[in-house]
Amino acid sequence: MTLHAIDGLIIDLDGTIYLGSEAIEGAREAMALVRASGKRVVFLSNRGNYSRRMCREKLQAMGIPAAAEEIVLTSTVTASYLLEHAPGSKAWLFGDEGLHEEMRSHGVKLATKPEEADWLVITLHETLTYAELNAAFRAARSGAKLIVTNEDKTFPGDGGECIDVGATIAAIVHTTGAQVSVVVGKPSAYMSDAALRALQLPPERCLVIGDSLHSDVALGKRAGIRTALVLTGSTSRERAEAAEERPDLIWNSILDIRELLQLKEE
Amino acid sequence: MTLHAIDGLIIDLDGTIYLGSEAIEGAREAMALVRASGKRVVFLSNRGNYSRRMCREKLQAMGIPAAAEEIVLTSTVTASYLLEHAPGSKAWLFGDEGLHEEMRSHGVKLATKPEEADWLVITLHETLTYAELNAAFRAARSGAKLIVTNEDKTFPGDGGECIDVGATIAAIVHTTGAQVSVVVGKPSAYMSDAALRALQLPPERCLVIGDSLHSDVALGKRAGIRTALVLTGSTSRERAEAAEERPDLIWNSILDIRELLQLKEE
Repeated sequence: MTLHAIDGLIIDLDGTIYLGSEAIEGAREAMALVRASGKRVVFLSNRGNYSRRMCREKLQAMGIPAAAEEIVLTSTVTASYLLEHAPGSKAWLFGDEGLHEEMRSHGVKLATKPEEADWLVITLHETLTYAELNAAFRAARSGAKLIVTNEDKTFPGDGGECIDVGATIAAIVHTTGAQVSVVVGKPSAYMSDAALRALQLPPERCLVIGDSLHSDVALGKRAGIRTALVLTGSTSRERAEAAEERPDLIWNSILDIRELLQLKEE
Repeated sequence: MTLHAIDGLIIDLDGTIYLGSEAIEGAREAMALVRASGKRVVFLSNRGNYSRRMCREKLQAMGIPAAAEEIVLTSTVTASYLLEHAPGSKAWLFGDEGLHEEMRSHGVKLATKPEEADWLVITLHETLTYAELNAAFRAARSGAKLIVTNEDKTFPGDGGECIDVGATIAAIVHTTGAQVSVVVGKPSAYMSDAALRALQLPPERCLVIGDSLHSDVALGKRAGIRTALVLTGSTSRERAEAAEERPDLIWNSILDIRELLQLKEE
């Protein structure tokens, strides 16, 4: 494959651009080459506990500048979902401050008591308390529908794999009998649609770059977008090559994009 | 039934003696009558996030004095289990300070890193943090066996039903694929054995008093101990009367014990 006809890059963050608070080796250089090529970019992440502002500042600190509209998080897409599909309904939030910030910036209406919520939004919560867990439980128990930014069990963080939002979802589902109504995160069409909308390009002119078979590669397959899997995150080469849904490309890291960018387009 | 031949009372706490931080109406009077009768008493609770010392102080503050050896908690019985069945093994604790205190007072050996733990002990954790959740996850992921003080989904607390340890167990089980090896709490034989040992009485000379069909009444049925269900906690009269395993007695509250205590023994 050449980059022939690829004008937009849909780039994952955790495991592709950074691991925890550290940039992945070569990520900064790769993004500099991408910018020089003039291709359109959107960063697409299943993280729902960050706001776009926070994410942009984190990238900036790594020497990777990005515009606000080039960042699409599950918190962003959850807010859009609620505004579009459940206008006027009230949400209760169970997640870190980034989720709250993103909901506020979109103008999502919030319930003042968990028992009055129409929706319970769950995302990763690295500052959770028992009182917040109990409030989320009460929202679900009182009939709030569950919308979750993603269902991942783990994410690659500082010091190895860390427990992800799958944990708190299981806690609420197990104790209340509630079911998850909407999963926003990759590989859903909510995320691919949001990315393509941000790029203003059709799927066949884009490439997904990410470290996860079941979120990044699966998203590309479902949406008709070609995929490059990087081996800097959750997937080994063995697993990548044995996968049922194989990525179009397997790269050691995102820096391998340089070979493609050097090719002359036909 | 008369109290004929009943010399020992096995009394539940949450929903029977108190609700959250408040004593249940009549509980103090009932316990004064019990003490005057000279019957032996053990308080038997599925709470594993309290130590016996903390529990004793809570009861004392409500005007209900109790000796340390009259209190048997799941934290107590978990410590005994580990010392007896897994001597020399190292535990990682995921629960409130009361669990830590109870383990220390029994001399249970603790792991210094989650990855080195042979056992992961889970109980209610009202002061939990994400870092503690993640450490427990790493213990389970590294092969620690799961021992849980109880599996309850909810408990009657301040302001209504609160989310219980079932939540954090589900979080760990769902994200690691680990299974629970030992459930210490009622209705297990670990708890009835510990209660009978504290009373130094055979089961037929005891009565279980509690608010839960599936923990208190079930414990009595399994161990051959008669049961009195109180309606001050999690069970309504309708549910009590429709239950498959019916309690021997249904009381509005523990104060109904006064009628039995007034009866002349044969």
